[in-house]
Amino acid sequence: MTTAKMEEAKIHVIAYSSDHFLETTLDSVAELAEVKDKYSVLWADVDGGLTAPFLEQMGAIFQFHELALEDALNFKQRAKTEDYEDYLFIVSRMINPHHLLDSEQLCIFLGPNYVITFQEKTGGDCLSGLRERLRKGAGRIRKLGADYLAYLIVDAVVDSYFPILEELGEQIETLEDEILEKPDSTAPSRIHNLKREIIAIRRTIWPLRDSIYSLCRDSHPLISDNTRVYLRDCYDHALRLMDIVETYREIGHDLMDIYLSTVNNRMNEIMKVLTIITTLFIPPTFIAGIYGMNFNTAVSPWNMPELHWFYGYPFALALMVTIAALLTYYLFRRGWLKNSGL
Amino acid sequence: MTTAKMEEAKIHVIAYSSDHFLETTLDSVAELAEVKDKYSVLWADVDGGLTAPFLEQMGAIFQFHELALEDALNFKQRAKTEDYEDYLFIVSRMINPHHLLDSEQLCIFLGPNYVITFQEKTGGDCLSGLRERLRKGAGRIRKLGADYLAYLIVDAVVDSYFPILEELGEQIETLEDEILEKPDSTAPSRIHNLKREIIAIRRTIWPLRDSIYSLCRDSHPLISDNTRVYLRDCYDHALRLMDIVETYREIGHDLMDIYLSTVNNRMNEIMKVLTIITTLFIPPTFIAGIYGMNFNTAVSPWNMPELHWFYGYPFALALMVTIAALLTYYLFRRGWLKNSGL
Amino acid sequence: MTTAKMEEAKIHVIAYSSDHFLETTLDSVAELAEVKDKYSVLWADVDGGLTAPFLEQMGAIFQFHELALEDALNFKQRAKTEDYEDYLFIVSRMINPHHLLDSEQLCIFLGPNYVITFQEKTGGDCLSGLRERLRKGAGRIRKLGADYLAYLIVDAVVDSYFPILEELGEQIETLEDEILEKPDSTAPSRIHNLKREIIAIRRTIWPLRDSIYSLCRDSHPLISDNTRVYLRDCYDHALRLMDIVETYREIGHDLMDIYLSTVNNRMNEIMKVLTIITTLFIPPTFIAGIYGMNFNTAVSPWNMPELHWFYGYPFALALMVTIAALLTYYLFRRGWLKNSGL
Amino acid sequence: MTTAKMEEAKIHVIAYSSDHFLETTLDSVAELAEVKDKYSVLWADVDGGLTAPFLEQMGAIFQFHELALEDALNFKQRAKTEDYEDYLFIVSRMINPHHLLDSEQLCIFLGPNYVITFQEKTGGDCLSGLRERLRKGAGRIRKLGADYLAYLIVDAVVDSYFPILEELGEQIETLEDEILEKPDSTAPSRIHNLKREIIAIRRTIWPLRDSIYSLCRDSHPLISDNTRVYLRDCYDHALRLMDIVETYREIGHDLMDIYLSTVNNRMNEIMKVLTIITTLFIPPTFIAGIYGMNFNTAVSPWNMPELHWFYGYPFALALMVTIAALLTYYLFRRGWLKNSGL
Amino acid sequence: MTTAKMEEAKIHVIAYSSDHFLETTLDSVAELAEVKDKYSVLWADVDGGLTAPFLEQMGAIFQFHELALEDALNFKQRAKTEDYEDYLFIVSRMINPHHLLDSEQLCIFLGPNYVITFQEKTGGDCLSGLRERLRKGAGRIRKLGADYLAYLIVDAVVDSYFPILEELGEQIETLEDEILEKPDSTAPSRIHNLKREIIAIRRTIWPLRDSIYSLCRDSHPLISDNTRVYLRDCYDHALRLMDIVETYREIGHDLMDIYLSTVNNRMNEIMKVLTIITTLFIPPTFIAGIYGMNFNTAVSPWNMPELHWFYGYPFALALMVTIAALLTYYLFRRGWLKNSGL
Repeated sequence: MTTAKMEEAKIHVIAYSSDHFLETTLDSVAELAEVKDKYSVLWADVDGGLTAPFLEQMGAIFQFHELALEDALNFKQRAKTEDYEDYLFIVSRMINPHHLLDSEQLCIFLGPNYVITFQEKTGGDCLSGLRERLRKGAGRIRKLGADYLAYLIVDAVVDSYFPILEELGEQIETLEDEILEKPDSTAPSRIHNLKREIIAIRRTIWPLRDSIYSLCRDSHPLISDNTRVYLRDCYDHALRLMDIVETYREIGHDLMDIYLSTVNNRMNEIMKVLTIITTLFIPPTFIAGIYGMNFNTAVSPWNMPELHWFYGYPFALALMVTIAALLTYYLFRRGWLKNSGL
Repeated sequence: MTTAKMEEAKIHVIAYSSDHFLETTLDSVAELAEVKDKYSVLWADVDGGLTAPFLEQMGAIFQFHELALEDALNFKQRAKTEDYEDYLFIVSRMINPHHLLDSEQLCIFLGPNYVITFQEKTGGDCLSGLRERLRKGAGRIRKLGADYLAYLIVDAVVDSYFPILEELGEQIETLEDEILEKPDSTAPSRIHNLKREIIAIRRTIWPLRDSIYSLCRDSHPLISDNTRVYLRDCYDHALRLMDIVETYREIGHDLMDIYLSTVNNRMNEIMKVLTIITTLFIPPTFIAGIYGMNFNTAVSPWNMPELHWFYGYPFALALMVTIAALLTYYLFRRGWLKNSGL
Repeated sequence: MTTAKMEEAKIHVIAYSSDHFLETTLDSVAELAEVKDKYSVLWADVDGGLTAPFLEQMGAIFQFHELALEDALNFKQRAKTEDYEDYLFIVSRMINPHHLLDSEQLCIFLGPNYVITFQEKTGGDCLSGLRERLRKGAGRIRKLGADYLAYLIVDAVVDSYFPILEELGEQIETLEDEILEKPDSTAPSRIHNLKREIIAIRRTIWPLRDSIYSLCRDSHPLISDNTRVYLRDCYDHALRLMDIVETYREIGHDLMDIYLSTVNNRMNEIMKVLTIITTLFIPPTFIAGIYGMNFNTAVSPWNMPELHWFYGYPFALALMVTIAALLTYYLFRRGWLKNSGL
Repeated sequence: MTTAKMEEAKIHVIAYSSDHFLETTLDSVAELAEVKDKYSVLWADVDGGLTAPFLEQMGAIFQFHELALEDALNFKQRAKTEDYEDYLFIVSRMINPHHLLDSEQLCIFLGPNYVITFQEKTGGDCLSGLRERLRKGAGRIRKLGADYLAYLIVDAVVDSYFPILEELGEQIETLEDEILEKPDSTAPSRIHNLKREIIAIRRTIWPLRDSIYSLCRDSHPLISDNTRVYLRDCYDHALRLMDIVETYREIGHDLMDIYLSTVNNRMNEIMKVLTIITTLFIPPTFIAGIYGMNFNTAVSPWNMPELHWFYGYPFALALMVTIAALLTYYLFRRGWLKNSGL
Repeated sequence: MTTAKMEEAKIHVIAYSSDHFLETTLDSVAELAEVKDKYSVLWADVDGGLTAPFLEQMGAIFQFHELALEDALNFKQRAKTEDYEDYLFIVSRMINPHHLLDSEQLCIFLGPNYVITFQEKTGGDCLSGLRERLRKGAGRIRKLGADYLAYLIVDAVVDSYFPILEELGEQIETLEDEILEKPDSTAPSRIHNLKREIIAIRRTIWPLRDSIYSLCRDSHPLISDNTRVYLRDCYDHALRLMDIVETYREIGHDLMDIYLSTVNNRMNEIMKVLTIITTLFIPPTFIAGIYGMNFNTAVSPWNMPELHWFYGYPFALALMVTIAALLTYYLFRRGWLKNSGL
């Protein structure tokens, strides 16, 4: 069964010297050992289907440390750069653009004349554009060493975050507009989801930035000064990612406050309508109640003589209208009628 | 009575050279002195039942500093690494998976050819897997020194946090769902408990990370370069723990906000229902009150002639229905009926 | 079409030695190559209309690194200072005073005897005052080198933030006053916009400060000690900008709290009015209801004898007034009438 | 009058060599000069009653810097360690266990063979246990130098915080329980007081920790390597204090949120009860109002024929009950009756 | 007109050697050039009325850098210390005790034998006590150099913050008490003002502390080791200022929370009163409504026979009282009557 699985883990090889180029897919690790050292740069990419025995075979050829191989198989690593003297081990993560809480691990082994990449999942990665460039780019790109190829891979990973953050930014703006205009009760959960995504991306980018920083700061013999300039640029991109994410985070912090204040405003209006209606109808109802009393008007001229007045009923109605009008005026003066959108 | 107690503190010894292996339980410290130096690595584990005289005896054999022994007996230490030249003294803490606010202290003395561990409590620790590996692992593991064994112990402690954090993560998600869907009045206290647990775990992991960092950063003669690579990996794990805990912390901060906003939304709906009912019934009640007045219709045609109309009663009912309908339409246009879930 | 575009990107040249001065506008990069090295300081300013081929031509003359040229064309860079040995590459950003969320990129290449600036957008920049000084300032300013000119440009950028922040500060004060005096429902969105602007400006100034710091801290051969003193002053200005922005940020954090507390106070008053009216009218209405009951007074002296009292009606009215008066007194004693602004 | 005051400031002297021990109380500074240098360690403790002239006399004997003496008299110093070459000047603070916002200053002068301590207030300090140990501890303690005595004093100060924090922790838990179970209106002020105490203690411990750190980090000729190990342990204790205080601080931050959410929940229940009663009684009251109208049933069969039905009254009552029952069912279905604790 | 203004800027000179003392007011800068170098320490203080030409003249005599002179004229500098080799340039700020958002700039030039101070505003400063000491202090103070005088000036500035902070602290306590006892609607704006003042003072003290730190940390040839000890003490004072301000800030953060919780409590009570009154009167009113219905009791024994009962009216009243009593008991059991302060 291990052999069955191992057939799944195909090795996509791109190898080139300044005047040769090879692209092929190998079925076994043994074949890779043959290709190794024949070209000035060898890029072996394993796209998913990783197993412990497979990685051990790879490790045996290139003499990778067991800890690095373990990390390549354990898909929950933070982005990091580790110096094993003969090679650099770089872990980075790619966010899944369709599910931002999810990310795929990409491990890079950079040796003097090879780059080995292990991807967690099969399929769609951010490196297809790079492969195309390697196929076409006859000139300069093939003259540069493995360190430049590793830079290109890391750069492709970093740049893959920008469209994701742009999309996230649009989601935030849409949510902002909705909350300010017509918030509904699903808003809290949507705000919460957004914040979780921002937290998750932040936790992914932070170590990525650090790992690139350690690549471009220290001088490794495997990385030329020329490539270091490019890595510094890549680090700048990572800083911009952090800037964007931190901005989103601060905006995200405010969304719940805005939602609560909008909800509070609504409550305020509801209370106003309730108060206005109560204020307008309760006093007249009280007056109606008074003239609904059954005092015996026959025994005394004091007992509700209004009931027998010629204009008794109009008088009562006028009293009610007057009170309601006075209260309306009072509410108007306090400015309640204006704002309440009545 | 001290002797009675000392019998409780059993010393579990695992000792090995590349071709010898010994596992036994000693009843007295004196026996340990005999075993010492006979194997290339000696691991003496005391699982609970620690007393001051017992530790003094141990200290006498290995010449431990009195402060380190005091720390081993005072179970409230923070995780730390202290360099006493002849040996390293490492304090770490294991969270109780059944009660996250509680943690057990594990002290490690790492000497040139021995590892002594003192556990605060008897029973269930995270080292049984490691013991099994030592028993079975005939090859490489027994060839490496005491420093590697110490790494394995620290690594086992660090890795024991992952399932605990996973469980905590699930609790957070469950609570999140409940708060968003049907929050009840126990939610605040449950959120608070969760936050306390997160704070407690964070305070435990933070110094643990620092103590591992000081192990893998500085060069101690007791720790080989090879082991240092492994400790660096262990430090990476500790960083991941911190990442997870910090994420939980940020999520935990939001939970109360979400709860309050959900409770606010409920209040809003209650107010809406109250307002709608008041709005619909108060005006008709007022009209009913009017026609319940007792004005003498005999003395004047102005006094409530409606009472003698042929269709007086239907007219009054129609008036009430009309007003209620108008108000309903008004409420509908303001969008209150839609959202209120009536 | 590329040539058509290139005609748009005009090069404004100001060149001077201690006793010569030239100001002209060049149509092609080729002409610039001729002027180069003829004056002790050459300032070539390209105000918008940048294209990749144009920048490549410029890069070919001055031998700029492709990454720097790419950055000059990608208008989303953070402010930064990069040392390419033969020249310094400084990126800075100018806030659009009419739309604070928007900023324009200004790239500066500082070489031994030249300053090349690339602006993102055509039109209105903060450098017109500086140009005027160069035209008029016969004396000292023209004796100093290109590094001093670069300082003057950076200083102009930094100083252009002060009026913008002053304006922003006035907006904050206006909003504060409104929120405290008569908050309306647009306040949350306005507070939110203000906070976004503060966040955006902060994110712009932060790297600007860092880039100036790296200019005045490290010793580059291109920057004389004399100029470094000026840059240190410029750095002080950047620190003051940060101080102002941080102060705004802290004030901005409070605005929503104040708004919520004011809205809460209003709600409180509305509830008070509602409660007062209910309290005053409900009990009298109840009394009116009692004497509106139709108990047969003929069958029993117990059945509402009040209806037949000589002063029955005055008695009922007096009862109502008494109760209302007592409740008013109760509300008065609790201090509700005082604060409610009735 | 100065002499009168000086008599109050008694000097408690404990002096010892490995085989001598002296404990006495001196009335004048002059006597102290005689004792000085006769023992290997001299501890002069002045427990309150400090005056400027007194300190000047002390300073003259030991040649203390005027600034250190001023600090000893100004009782608002932060904890700190200052190196005056011939002696170390250590300021620390002891919290008053009965009033946590209050703290007492303790200044320590550590010279080659003396420790001078100045306490702000007379009476109860945390050093009585230490004095007892010195009296009894014939062996090791008296063989060690003045630096070890200074460590013992600092350690006693640090350890005196633990019971205070424990007590504070219990107060927090009590308050938490009360807020969650039956919050009353005094809770905000109690939470506020607690937070002030936590802030005050934090501000006291923070510099204490720093001052101990500077004692155990740098190598002073006055402090032996052996004592430094003990100070490092003392520093660990200070770190633990900080951990505890930071945990309290985070918990304290949440208390107000919990209180508000509990108060909000209560409001919610009150509103529910109000709404339920309104909902149940307003519609039947409206119906009663209808049948209380005085339409003339004689002029038309349309005018309230129900009044003359045989079962008119039961019909009206049944109508009311039906409406109330329907509304109750509606409220029940919305789940209001369940939670409201009715 | 420039000359007119220059007459306003008087130069107060205090100059001394160990046995000479001069205090005078000069009208022109030229006179100052004569006094210079005649005494071991010269202090020239310009108290307001600064103009560019005046500063240029001063600069010409002492050869100050134009940037330092510009800073002295631009009154919005942050506190800072700048080393111009021949002299130190120290900017500090004094808070206006009557308007805490306002602060006055004080620039100090410290040369080998002179101290020049430029004050932003004429009148009341914190240096009068120092001048008095110089006049009287015949002994030590006049033997020390210009660096000690500069220390005395900086120390006077730092110490002038303490009474201001004490006053602010009292204001905070007063506001706290008011908010907890009887908050009114002006509280939010007062809290906000207080927080702005705290923010402003914090932003003023922060750089002041840094500038003193750079004075006492680095070794400048202009500052003797003896003076550095005094500056370290001054730095301690600045740290204490920060401690106090940070404490105020944390307390200030809580004030709005407390206000909101108190306001919430009031709302709660209002709602309770409303609910109690509604609960007590609505059901009896309903009963009164029932017996106010006009069912024809003649056509049926089912139609409100109660109306003809002998004890009908007492029965109805008893029914009302019973219901009200039951509801009162219910409210009492829920504990509402207790807390509501009725």
